[in-house]
Amino acid sequence: MQKKDSWLLPEGISEALPEEAAHLERLRRNLLDTFACWGYQLVIPPFVDFLDSLLTGSGHDLDLQTFKLTDQLSGEMLGVRADMTPQVARIDAHNLKHEWPTRLCYVGTTLHTVGDPLEKTRSPMQIGAELYGHAGIESDYEVIQLMLEMLAISGIQNVHLDMGHVGVYRALVEHAGLNKQQETELFDVLQRKARTELAELIEGFAISAHFKDIFNALPKLNGGIDILSKAAQLLDIGNGDIQTALQDLQVIAEKLQRDYPSLTVSFDLAELRGYHYHTGLVFAAFVPSIGREIARGGRYDNIGAVFGRARPATGFSADLKVLAGLLAGEDEAPVQSIFAPAVEDCELSRTVRDLRASGVRVIRQLPGQTGGPEQLGCNAVLEKQDQQWVVRPLASR
Amino acid sequence: MQKKDSWLLPEGISEALPEEAAHLERLRRNLLDTFACWGYQLVIPPFVDFLDSLLTGSGHDLDLQTFKLTDQLSGEMLGVRADMTPQVARIDAHNLKHEWPTRLCYVGTTLHTVGDPLEKTRSPMQIGAELYGHAGIESDYEVIQLMLEMLAISGIQNVHLDMGHVGVYRALVEHAGLNKQQETELFDVLQRKARTELAELIEGFAISAHFKDIFNALPKLNGGIDILSKAAQLLDIGNGDIQTALQDLQVIAEKLQRDYPSLTVSFDLAELRGYHYHTGLVFAAFVPSIGREIARGGRYDNIGAVFGRARPATGFSADLKVLAGLLAGEDEAPVQSIFAPAVEDCELSRTVRDLRASGVRVIRQLPGQTGGPEQLGCNAVLEKQDQQWVVRPLASR
Repeated sequence: MQKKDSWLLPEGISEALPEEAAHLERLRRNLLDTFACWGYQLVIPPFVDFLDSLLTGSGHDLDLQTFKLTDQLSGEMLGVRADMTPQVARIDAHNLKHEWPTRLCYVGTTLHTVGDPLEKTRSPMQIGAELYGHAGIESDYEVIQLMLEMLAISGIQNVHLDMGHVGVYRALVEHAGLNKQQETELFDVLQRKARTELAELIEGFAISAHFKDIFNALPKLNGGIDILSKAAQLLDIGNGDIQTALQDLQVIAEKLQRDYPSLTVSFDLAELRGYHYHTGLVFAAFVPSIGREIARGGRYDNIGAVFGRARPATGFSADLKVLAGLLAGEDEAPVQSIFAPAVEDCELSRTVRDLRASGVRVIRQLPGQTGGPEQLGCNAVLEKQDQQWVVRPLASR
Repeated sequence: MQKKDSWLLPEGISEALPEEAAHLERLRRNLLDTFACWGYQLVIPPFVDFLDSLLTGSGHDLDLQTFKLTDQLSGEMLGVRADMTPQVARIDAHNLKHEWPTRLCYVGTTLHTVGDPLEKTRSPMQIGAELYGHAGIESDYEVIQLMLEMLAISGIQNVHLDMGHVGVYRALVEHAGLNKQQETELFDVLQRKARTELAELIEGFAISAHFKDIFNALPKLNGGIDILSKAAQLLDIGNGDIQTALQDLQVIAEKLQRDYPSLTVSFDLAELRGYHYHTGLVFAAFVPSIGREIARGGRYDNIGAVFGRARPATGFSADLKVLAGLLAGEDEAPVQSIFAPAVEDCELSRTVRDLRASGVRVIRQLPGQTGGPEQLGCNAVLEKQDQQWVVRPLASR
């Protein structure tokens, strides 16, 4: 093994230097404050947890993405969280145990063993909000609205919203009588949008011609609001779940048209993101400049069951670093920064203290130091005039 | 292996529920804003790093406290940070590379395999500030002042400051001609403050009677500012480093007396916290209610050497959760929280949006939900009066 330079970072792991860190911190505060204004309370789940409780009901994908650690104290397996949603669900189900709707939000570093090939990071700074305890589409719509608000506050324009409903596929699979393996194969092919393969696979299933037509048509149920009525016709197999799902999508679509007239929305009934844990409406936000979703969410009822309490749940999450990066070029208003000379003087110390107490940045020169006000990013200096220390702005260059 | 309840947390690992999380978030913001007013810029080091670069120059203790992970992408060993200081030093030395003094601050979760027996946590939320590029006591004094400011802002009273200087012991060991093993044994006994053992150990060293007296007397050089003159007499072995160290302590002590007349300060020349990486003045803050230090720091020159650039450095750190916990009982001013009924009404939606935009918390009722304004923590409701939605405060109980 060759020894690498000691300052290299592992692939997909990044650090934030002052400018980026300040930007991330501003956005973090704005978003958490907004979540608070909507009634979403911050919780801070632990960075490591017993593996069992991290992976609960989350499926194989999350298992592969989770770094495992041996706990020296208990001898048990710990995991570094790869997703904070199961932890927040546990807090709702086990710690808070409210009978009424509970709104929680969170922000924190997560870690992935391999990462998504489309993402450049293995350590997203996950930010999100979750609404527990309400099964109606009003709560779905609330979290969609809050996600759109998050993107607006992040300064992200030209947002495109993609919506689906895993209940449709789930009901079709059940109704058609596919077994577990067939369901998995079909899911896999649909995810890869491999249409030729899809036709071949479906041909091999011992199901009615009607269902073969339906599964073959699924990838085409993809487009504007009008595909919902097309789907209602095509999928009219007398299944109440499918009808309800399509009606829910229709209602949400109309609300979005009314409240966000300039938002482009599309529907995709073959889009099954998070199929393993989602149970209803799913959605994702895209922007033209990035080839993948920048925020995502959906309904995942009953996630708390394993923690002793099944609750309806819906929520969304994003990577704060991705949101901040979309605005990276933006100029911030310059902050007043005052340079105070390295002079021992009680009056100067008092002036510096008062300025700082009023929220102004003051950097004290250190005796013999290299660099003056400009190197330290200051746009003003403290100077003594007529026995008084006064702030003199520096000419901006 | 018995399966445990899936909601138990590993020993020494904690989560923060809404009330505590809000308190932590407020304190976090106040402290980072204060650090910014002093010119300390936030950086965000990665949570995992190559093991080599995490453990650089940090000694065996940190190695034992560091969780190791195998990187699936590179096959190399990663570590979960147990201390953020080496990472921040790398950012100064490798990324920023300023010729002038650099002030950085940070806050983030760290993880310890075993934890300190005195601490109850294995996952401190480390917050700290570091000043690079200045070797004089003015920078030592600046970081001590900033640490005291941090404790004041955290609302912590009756702070006691304990100061030492590892340069004194280092010079004595060198001057007396102790070898590495003797140095380690002596260090160990001094740390445990085992005086009988100390006398026996020193008796076995082949050193002059004068040095035997000095090492035996070290643990007694412990008390108020007057022990500094006592030390100057006792340790007058013609070593310039020792004289400078004692003079530095004297100057800092006088500054503290002038600027913080009610602060109690003690000196301990046998206190060698962080001896393995510290190089000069060291300090720690205590409060009567907690048996161990609540913040600590000191000078650690040349830490950046391994990253290509040796720089003088001094700084401090604390556990944000400990700071917040010392104030846990404090009442916060109640935040206005408005309950909006589950009514479809454009005017209501607009009122809710406007209130939220002005920073007020508004929680929308969901159709059919359990719980009303009080359960959701609201102290006002939106009501329609004469075609207008108005905020009606609820009588406080």
